[in-house]
Amino acid sequence: LRLGASREEAAIVSDSLVEADLEGHDSHGVMRLPTYVERVKRGFYTLGAKADTLVETPSMALLDGNWGFGHVIARKAMEIAITKAKMSGISYVGVRNANHIGRLAHFAKMALKENLIAIIAVNSAGPVAPHGGKSPIMGTNPICFAVPSDVGFPFILDMATSVVASGKVLLKQERGESVPEDWIIDRDGRPTTDSSVFGLEGKGGMLLPLGGSVGYKGFGLSLMMDLLGGVLTGAGATAVKLEGIERRPNANGISIICIDMKQITQVDLFKERANALVRSVKQSEVRPGFTEILIPGEPSSRMEKERTQKGIEVHENVWRKLKGIARELDIDTKKGP
Amino acid sequence: LRLGASREEAAIVSDSLVEADLEGHDSHGVMRLPTYVERVKRGFYTLGAKADTLVETPSMALLDGNWGFGHVIARKAMEIAITKAKMSGISYVGVRNANHIGRLAHFAKMALKENLIAIIAVNSAGPVAPHGGKSPIMGTNPICFAVPSDVGFPFILDMATSVVASGKVLLKQERGESVPEDWIIDRDGRPTTDSSVFGLEGKGGMLLPLGGSVGYKGFGLSLMMDLLGGVLTGAGATAVKLEGIERRPNANGISIICIDMKQITQVDLFKERANALVRSVKQSEVRPGFTEILIPGEPSSRMEKERTQKGIEVHENVWRKLKGIARELDIDTKKGP
Repeated sequence: LRLGASREEAAIVSDSLVEADLEGHDSHGVMRLPTYVERVKRGFYTLGAKADTLVETPSMALLDGNWGFGHVIARKAMEIAITKAKMSGISYVGVRNANHIGRLAHFAKMALKENLIAIIAVNSAGPVAPHGGKSPIMGTNPICFAVPSDVGFPFILDMATSVVASGKVLLKQERGESVPEDWIIDRDGRPTTDSSVFGLEGKGGMLLPLGGSVGYKGFGLSLMMDLLGGVLTGAGATAVKLEGIERRPNANGISIICIDMKQITQVDLFKERANALVRSVKQSEVRPGFTEILIPGEPSSRMEKERTQKGIEVHENVWRKLKGIARELDIDTKKGP
Repeated sequence: LRLGASREEAAIVSDSLVEADLEGHDSHGVMRLPTYVERVKRGFYTLGAKADTLVETPSMALLDGNWGFGHVIARKAMEIAITKAKMSGISYVGVRNANHIGRLAHFAKMALKENLIAIIAVNSAGPVAPHGGKSPIMGTNPICFAVPSDVGFPFILDMATSVVASGKVLLKQERGESVPEDWIIDRDGRPTTDSSVFGLEGKGGMLLPLGGSVGYKGFGLSLMMDLLGGVLTGAGATAVKLEGIERRPNANGISIICIDMKQITQVDLFKERANALVRSVKQSEVRPGFTEILIPGEPSSRMEKERTQKGIEVHENVWRKLKGIARELDIDTKKGP
């Protein structure tokens, strides 16, 4: 708000950040705020930007986000995808010129509330190596699937197509901890568990694509996210500078597909069967080293309950940065801007 | 043909099997024929079956395959998905009551010929453990993405959501070779490289989901394939027997999405940019232990060229079985049935 955002966009971005923290995805929570602030100051964000509809058909739309907050644009894109899916049974909405949109699950939940299936493909910043490569050119390019159910939590898979998201390695780095064997390689392409070689500030280390010995699978998924999220929408690819496209730091290209199942089947029957599937899988035998079988969306939901009760513990480095911003922008941290 | 299949369905199934062998995916090639023959004899297949359209809207359809050959039904489903995508921009076709459909890439190619993007979700037979589990209840549940391009080969990612397909472990087993560390666990859930403990005949060993230390990702994808391919279509889940659904051995539930990009962008521009992306990724630096960066679809395409020239080497066990079938059904192997 102090930098010039509207009440509406500030509320949408805050909601998304706090939800991420509540659900235990600290890497997408308030720790992102310093980066947003810096990028707003550097002119990468157009505050108050409204998305333009570039093309529209009964089942499809392509939006230009005009470099506003990605969270705001992705919300609008999902609203359109929902409306069109209800009308046409299945819909597609693509987005270009959007800044970082945060967690895909945040938008997938909007579809679940309407009993729609959602698939979201996004390309994003890296650094991730292609399978067999040592150039940090790929993004963590996430994919998201969400299906309606009554399993007691939003049944959503929201995953980076790299082994993990960058934030998880940065967290280990900050704490001086090592990472598991199949997560990263150093600048020379050698596997390492030393998190200090990772990423930023010219260190050159990078994430591996999902898959370990079959990393061509994660790499393949990542490429497809770059094509669907970035090339199809005109948002630009992560892996290469494309002619005629402006790509800002941390831009996200977004493709959303929504399916209204009630046009071909009964929603209640689907949900009942989804529940039976989940119940059965959760009741199957657990192997040594594990205590239970967890379903996509379940850990987030548990953490949300826990943190709603106990509060969110913000890492001291993040807290220090947030206080620094408050000081710098002359914000009373008790009253807000 | 000798068992009663029509010329048309025999041709479609043969095409798919030989194409798989040509492209180096022996696990989906003629080695499947003995299983098909056995299952036809046991009555799991309805020869000459035509698919029924259960529900149809301008952009969606749900088909009942009436337990014919999956290859035939999946072809028809893709044809419908293509027609509807051209009309509506994006389409969905689901299939229930289909036997094994073979490689998803085979059908994705049909969409590429029409300059459509295809996403295919399928649930299939296992044995795969859920992440953290030691019950072989999940299928290898593949996912497929295909995008139009001019990169010189069909740009298709067709992958099991388990570490690898069962056939790859069975091949190692047959040759007495070990498997990499993150592929399988034994019946007690312990990781092993001993391929002999795998799968069939009460051995109880099973595949792990894609992901190694982050196997919850492959498991999550697998669950989503079970929901999209199996539950949404009414084909039944792999991981649980659902009330009111007949699920035959090796049945496939199929969900196809096709996108006609020309309704929102220019196909030529997309292809040009896809090519630039691929070119750039392939030219990036290679890490120790690798000689080049391969793109989804590229290894298959190379193998196809090689085997088209040199012929397909059929494993002696497969060859013996094929000759056995010929003898049993009184087929002259020189002339055909």
